Amino acid sequence: MPMAGLNEGALPMVKEMTERAALLGIRAGRMKGGAMLIDCGSGREVTGSYEAGCRTVEAACGGCARAWTGIGAIGPYTLPILQMNIASPADACLGALLPLWKVRAGGEAVSASGPGRALARRPPRIYQMIEMDEQADDAVVCLDAGWFPDDDEAGRIAEACGVGVDRLTIILAPASGIAGAVMNAALVAGTTVARLIKYGYESDRILHASLRVPVPPPSLDAERVRDAACLGGTVSGTIHLVVAGYDDAIAGCVSGRCSWTASRDTRLTAPVAELTVTDSRDGSVRRFGACDPGKALEHFGIRRRSVRPDRITAIR
Amino acid sequence: MPMAGLNEGALPMVKEMTERAALLGIRAGRMKGGAMLIDCGSGREVTGSYEAGCRTVEAACGGCARAWTGIGAIGPYTLPILQMNIASPADACLGALLPLWKVRAGGEAVSASGPGRALARRPPRIYQMIEMDEQADDAVVCLDAGWFPDDDEAGRIAEACGVGVDRLTIILAPASGIAGAVMNAALVAGTTVARLIKYGYESDRILHASLRVPVPPPSLDAERVRDAACLGGTVSGTIHLVVAGYDDAIAGCVSGRCSWTASRDTRLTAPVAELTVTDSRDGSVRRFGACDPGKALEHFGIRRRSVRPDRITAIR
Amino acid sequence: MPMAGLNEGALPMVKEMTERAALLGIRAGRMKGGAMLIDCGSGREVTGSYEAGCRTVEAACGGCARAWTGIGAIGPYTLPILQMNIASPADACLGALLPLWKVRAGGEAVSASGPGRALARRPPRIYQMIEMDEQADDAVVCLDAGWFPDDDEAGRIAEACGVGVDRLTIILAPASGIAGAVMNAALVAGTTVARLIKYGYESDRILHASLRVPVPPPSLDAERVRDAACLGGTVSGTIHLVVAGYDDAIAGCVSGRCSWTASRDTRLTAPVAELTVTDSRDGSVRRFGACDPGKALEHFGIRRRSVRPDRITAIR
Repeated sequence: MPMAGLNEGALPMVKEMTERAALLGIRAGRMKGGAMLIDCGSGREVTGSYEAGCRTVEAACGGCARAWTGIGAIGPYTLPILQMNIASPADACLGALLPLWKVRAGGEAVSASGPGRALARRPPRIYQMIEMDEQADDAVVCLDAGWFPDDDEAGRIAEACGVGVDRLTIILAPASGIAGAVMNAALVAGTTVARLIKYGYESDRILHASLRVPVPPPSLDAERVRDAACLGGTVSGTIHLVVAGYDDAIAGCVSGRCSWTASRDTRLTAPVAELTVTDSRDGSVRRFGACDPGKALEHFGIRRRSVRPDRITAIR
Repeated sequence: MPMAGLNEGALPMVKEMTERAALLGIRAGRMKGGAMLIDCGSGREVTGSYEAGCRTVEAACGGCARAWTGIGAIGPYTLPILQMNIASPADACLGALLPLWKVRAGGEAVSASGPGRALARRPPRIYQMIEMDEQADDAVVCLDAGWFPDDDEAGRIAEACGVGVDRLTIILAPASGIAGAVMNAALVAGTTVARLIKYGYESDRILHASLRVPVPPPSLDAERVRDAACLGGTVSGTIHLVVAGYDDAIAGCVSGRCSWTASRDTRLTAPVAELTVTDSRDGSVRRFGACDPGKALEHFGIRRRSVRPDRITAIR
Repeated sequence: MPMAGLNEGALPMVKEMTERAALLGIRAGRMKGGAMLIDCGSGREVTGSYEAGCRTVEAACGGCARAWTGIGAIGPYTLPILQMNIASPADACLGALLPLWKVRAGGEAVSASGPGRALARRPPRIYQMIEMDEQADDAVVCLDAGWFPDDDEAGRIAEACGVGVDRLTIILAPASGIAGAVMNAALVAGTTVARLIKYGYESDRILHASLRVPVPPPSLDAERVRDAACLGGTVSGTIHLVVAGYDDAIAGCVSGRCSWTASRDTRLTAPVAELTVTDSRDGSVRRFGACDPGKALEHFGIRRRSVRPDRITAIR
């Protein structure tokens, strides 16, 4: 199912982030060259927020997803939990959400996601596979980077997207910040959909995806947050899929645990802890895998202790 | 408390559904005769989405409700769960949400809901009972049908609503699709409020209703989804009511279980599994009934097995 | 970090409340003198709603927060639970949310909250402490009062805020109503942030706060609802903080239980039941305290009984 409009779909989130920047703990402004830059958490002055993270995720999915975070129990701790509902999961995840495009920002190579990637068609084989032909006058690109792109770099991104630089929005959400931690947690949905397709399931038969996953603690060490988000998903991420026809390939989404230290390469092919699959053709429901909140705490670097929840306790 | 404005209240949801149709997995367009048709899940090309289902529910309540779905544990499975907050429950549910109007679409008789029903005043005694006198230039009607109405049928619906056909919006959300499954789950709130009034509780003393209910799996068999949604509510639906003055009639909402196969007739008078009632006059709180998630799985056609949630398991 | 714009940040909520008043169970209209008055629950004709309560909370935080209520299990009961995500917690809570300004409404002294307080700078030392210098042409003030202010009183509030009376919005959300009960539950976030600062933690190092707390039943006795909301927070409120650098002062947020009857004075310095703190500098996570849902029921005046959740029960 070719579907255009993901960049346009991201514009309402961009609008909210620029108009209500201070209230979301972020900053937005035009670069000299004309590109709109939304800073969701670089440095210490802009702290970001869980709401800004959710808007970033929604924009990165080209408006096909709704994302929100609440807090809930993960073992004895009460931690942020991200939930997402994703329509057209193959387009949203493979076509936009996953950071599969390398661009330069601040002189460094960083991973780019968002619907702008569908305009640049990077990597090209993805867009052939999901038969997606995005056309747009505006481009929205998300960078997991703490470094601001300069005007040259923004210009090159706009050029790759085939839009004027003044029609380009760059959302900076480094993994080290609150918004970036949410964004990395959302990738768990993307990797599951990617796995499903890699294992031979047809992308246009994936009708809907919902995710529930703990958000790792932000930290100055971005790489550690990326690892924690990925590994948190492999032990405590839950996905509900609606598919047109069940196939045994789907079970592969939960198989093959990651090693305890996720690497840059294995991160985008990591399994999810738990998967429930509803077949819209016969209404059958299957479940695979299981969540282990205790292991999520370990991956988040939180020591685990037995706690009696009915009394006052201090866990440091 | 007569309250007008439900059709106008539904227009923001209609606007979102038409402007962001592709991103919600739906289609919207004008019929030849001028009516706006929003297709949330007829046939295989439009798959719908849980978000589209929530917008349909909100529109069907005339904007008096906010609806959202997350995923949560129902026994060992992680399934979509609908939550709703409903202001003015008698108007929203009896006056709009419940599919109490028979219209024709695609040559077949189908059940219509939504605030347009309040303009057509079908059935009339309902509107006398809740003292509702809706006036509007726009009409919004929801159909649980997989068949498109033709222009004649749309014209007749507009006429019954007393609006020009170009001011009529028809939302198609067949129970067989994702959005329709959400819509049928929402009816659990409507049937509870209807029971309350049937058992003698005055409609204007029902101040607020909140619902939490599992959403049945979509399936090609629409009738099976309708049954599953209704029966899921009778065993696992939870409602919180705020009322002005407790009355023993309220307990009737949870009494008299449905038979295991809900019929078209009994569906709209089904009890809810669990009810918590807060009396705003004295702040007292009462609870009736209880949820049984395992039975919901049975009604959803999901085999039940004992599962140790702390280890990796595969349930097919 | 001085941050202006809280009054402007509240305007979208004001817009929704005025444009969709009837659908939210509230009333909005201009007073003779020109002030906009939004009545969320005075008297019996306007019942309010949980959604109206959430919009009030968001407006009272100057748009820095997103608030929503679902229903969830508190012991054997299913009760409304408020969740909030708050960016810039010191500004939002100390600068706006907490009702630290005494004004007159209906001839009585009532507590005022909302970003208008930041324009009036009451109490002044708060704004020096958080280094906040709010400037705005519009003022939004929330009153926990069942009495309408007259034009004189509205004029004096506008004057204190330094805005024209026609640029003043007054949101009435008495604790006795549904919206006011939500608003009082939200204060649990405010008191925790206030405690944190009182115990010596620097306000600009509090980066983010999330709250989860049960909402007390509305009741004709407003003072009882205020007590219940506060005491509910001390036994069942959960907060997640993101801070820049952990400090032992933070543990003070959960210490020193309130006496069983909260007083007007102790209410705004009450501890929260459970606190999880994430340090954004090193990603460490600490937890303090614990929730006791059963005690929340006692504070809400709900008798507690042992219930077997797997069978039909009636608890009155």
